[in-house]
Amino acid sequence: MRQWSEVNWSRIIKVIGLLLMLEGAAIWLCLPFSLWYGGEDWQAIFFSGLLVVCVGGVLLYFTRKNRNPSIGKREGYLIVSFTWIIISFFGAVPFVLSGAIPNYTDAFFETISGFTTTGASILSDIESVPKGVLFWRSMTHFMGGMGIIVLSLAILPLLGIGGMQLFIAEVPGPVPDKLHPRITATAKRLWIIYVGLTLSETILLLFGGMSLFDALCHAFGTMATGGFSTKNDSIAGFSPYIQYVIIVFMFLAGVNFSLHYLWLNGRFRKVKGNEELRYYTFLILLMGLIISALIVVFDRSSIGESFRTALFQVVSIVTTTGYVTTDYLAWKPFIWFLLVVLMFTGGCAGSTGGGIKSIRALLLIKSSYIELKRLVHPRAYIPVRYNKKPVKPEIISNVLAFFLFYFLLFAFGSMVMSFMGMDFPTAIGSVIASLGNIGPGIGAVGPAENYALVSLPGKWFLAFLMLLGRLEIFTVLILLTPAFWKK
Amino acid sequence: MRQWSEVNWSRIIKVIGLLLMLEGAAIWLCLPFSLWYGGEDWQAIFFSGLLVVCVGGVLLYFTRKNRNPSIGKREGYLIVSFTWIIISFFGAVPFVLSGAIPNYTDAFFETISGFTTTGASILSDIESVPKGVLFWRSMTHFMGGMGIIVLSLAILPLLGIGGMQLFIAEVPGPVPDKLHPRITATAKRLWIIYVGLTLSETILLLFGGMSLFDALCHAFGTMATGGFSTKNDSIAGFSPYIQYVIIVFMFLAGVNFSLHYLWLNGRFRKVKGNEELRYYTFLILLMGLIISALIVVFDRSSIGESFRTALFQVVSIVTTTGYVTTDYLAWKPFIWFLLVVLMFTGGCAGSTGGGIKSIRALLLIKSSYIELKRLVHPRAYIPVRYNKKPVKPEIISNVLAFFLFYFLLFAFGSMVMSFMGMDFPTAIGSVIASLGNIGPGIGAVGPAENYALVSLPGKWFLAFLMLLGRLEIFTVLILLTPAFWKK
Repeated sequence: MRQWSEVNWSRIIKVIGLLLMLEGAAIWLCLPFSLWYGGEDWQAIFFSGLLVVCVGGVLLYFTRKNRNPSIGKREGYLIVSFTWIIISFFGAVPFVLSGAIPNYTDAFFETISGFTTTGASILSDIESVPKGVLFWRSMTHFMGGMGIIVLSLAILPLLGIGGMQLFIAEVPGPVPDKLHPRITATAKRLWIIYVGLTLSETILLLFGGMSLFDALCHAFGTMATGGFSTKNDSIAGFSPYIQYVIIVFMFLAGVNFSLHYLWLNGRFRKVKGNEELRYYTFLILLMGLIISALIVVFDRSSIGESFRTALFQVVSIVTTTGYVTTDYLAWKPFIWFLLVVLMFTGGCAGSTGGGIKSIRALLLIKSSYIELKRLVHPRAYIPVRYNKKPVKPEIISNVLAFFLFYFLLFAFGSMVMSFMGMDFPTAIGSVIASLGNIGPGIGAVGPAENYALVSLPGKWFLAFLMLLGRLEIFTVLILLTPAFWKK
Repeated sequence: MRQWSEVNWSRIIKVIGLLLMLEGAAIWLCLPFSLWYGGEDWQAIFFSGLLVVCVGGVLLYFTRKNRNPSIGKREGYLIVSFTWIIISFFGAVPFVLSGAIPNYTDAFFETISGFTTTGASILSDIESVPKGVLFWRSMTHFMGGMGIIVLSLAILPLLGIGGMQLFIAEVPGPVPDKLHPRITATAKRLWIIYVGLTLSETILLLFGGMSLFDALCHAFGTMATGGFSTKNDSIAGFSPYIQYVIIVFMFLAGVNFSLHYLWLNGRFRKVKGNEELRYYTFLILLMGLIISALIVVFDRSSIGESFRTALFQVVSIVTTTGYVTTDYLAWKPFIWFLLVVLMFTGGCAGSTGGGIKSIRALLLIKSSYIELKRLVHPRAYIPVRYNKKPVKPEIISNVLAFFLFYFLLFAFGSMVMSFMGMDFPTAIGSVIASLGNIGPGIGAVGPAENYALVSLPGKWFLAFLMLLGRLEIFTVLILLTPAFWKK
């Protein structure tokens, strides 16, 4: 155990160097699409990839002597936070070089929005962007989604973040030493599921008449619960079949991936009895029905279409994907509040979805109800139960603290955005949408608009919120405590 | 101990009957002011008082045989919740009979707003209301303030609500049996302080040139942190001297009354070391300075006036009084966010102020920071400390649950108000202002407007939120749990 001694910086740099090499290779994977669609951006993509590979190579070269494979907790936290920032920093290069997004701040915003699977965009005319770069834009979702699943199911539980120990059945308690082998083993299984689901969706979208390019990009956007589309009107122009396929896969992407694993291993009863899954499904159906009823009554549209539109929007928002088939701000304002509740809730833990997470919302509701009961029977000890087992008080207090930080960041963030000159609903909407990794918010950053008009400092600030939200807040905040840096 | 057996209804009715007799007598106290100012409303006041005294008398007559003095916890909860509702129900009569507020819903809204010391008004032209009725309006504040101090410092700690045990030095732990003698003793001391402060303020306001009528009404509104004024423009038309007097007494009204008691008994060190008081003072000074600086910079007004205006508004909002000297919605929108934070925070526990209360905000901040520390040292047990003593985990979890309920009520309430057709900021603003017992909110219920335009069901709903906020939420919610009614 060396985690509270010197930080093993050279090991951190080595990991980041390796990830940059992979990122460079991933950029090159966009070359075939660039060339197929005319190749106007092939040089930008080639040289961006080269740059990133070289930087990665240099980092690896200088840390080649570090043969100490141990990564302590502290290194874990640092790698996680820095990776997302550095990968986004270099991932922005193809946008700038190709001229698709000439301003670096905008390009960085778009890239970190991709890697955090937020899907907030500054592009007003997506369809005019060269196809190679557009593919890279969707690739950032795919890679970000992979990263977040490994992070939430393999890394964070070992680091002890967010009471995540509770959320998964397969990973045993904290093993502070040598994270490496366990992470590798867990990651492999999860990636197979992730890639498998992505390919299945791609095939189903191809059946619906999409081009391979569009099918892949939308499958990436769905499975990462990202939300980048290749079309200016997102999913609105596609057929009902395609919309239903995307609804189903958004739903699946918002489910804890360890449940997918259990399911594939035939342990159906465990999946069926999972309380978070039940709550998540119940919430989606309930909200879908309420909102479709409200649309039918107030907007007088047909039942079938209302149901599809409402369900699509509910699933898209609760999973924090952010695809849209309609401008939900055109609905009655009180429906916005229902959507805001969904924006806060988010997907399941261990999925690619953002937000507070369904399990936290569930535990918050349960522990509040128990607090009421305790007033009646002050001397009785009534534990919160999850999946029929009592939950440790430390986990409850962690969940409550998480909610509190989330709320404080939301309030503080809204204030900052308002200070930068945004109106009231836009300030609130942009912060919820960034912190929850959703994408489109309310106000002037709603589904019919984009983030182009946000000021430059505003973009950096929202990018920081995306990172905080994506890394379960604590992972980043812990770096700011003096205790973290003490020996 | 009979608290979990049959509810002693006849005892509850007896207490309410007694309180109605007192209310009737209080209504008659407004007669001198009515007669002095022309007496146009003396008949309405006389007969309202008579009605209320008679109803109280009838209730006492039918419960005269109940000689069992024991009031259990359950009776305590029921008395507290019902009292506020029934007193408001009958307190509305003078408004209706005098014709000042012909609509009963409006009159009930105005009265419960008074008794909960909220200060939200539906009156557009306050100065045209007959003086006797206007005095009754301010009396509801005075009585509500008295009630809330006894409730929070003498009754709730014994009922075990809100971790209130922690907040006071003088009342020892729960004594479930026989609440009566202890409540009486504590109440007497507190009322002497409350009345003493009210009289001191009245005298200082008389020095500032106010009439006795205005001085008393504003002293009532200040010490109850209520906010009803006798003027259409609230405090804006009064001299800087009067504004500073009101600032000082609003501040004092927002302080825990058990600290006033300690202070008067010469235990200065205990008062000085009180963390909640320090936090409350620090927050007021910090926000006052920030906002005055912002006003000086953006609105180019003079430093002295900006400071007075900013400090007045900060103290008025954090204590949840709701008096205004300026339309704060004319300030830059990002200042609104600072005000919203203050609206949530509220005064000290055991004061007449509403909101979450400073001590809860302080404990929330502390426990969140400790949660971060715990991530670094997972095995260390670090208790939250308050006044240098460790706080029990049950109290922390109670505070967190309180915050969560508060937040959920805020979200749910905003949705309901929005459903009733209110725009986004007004829906949010009216709910914060009602739940926090502040009065003026943001949007169309801001300081320059009033609640006249809210729909009838909206007024009943906001009245319910005032009651919930005033009774520390749990006191009312506990009545809705099945466990409360089981033997």
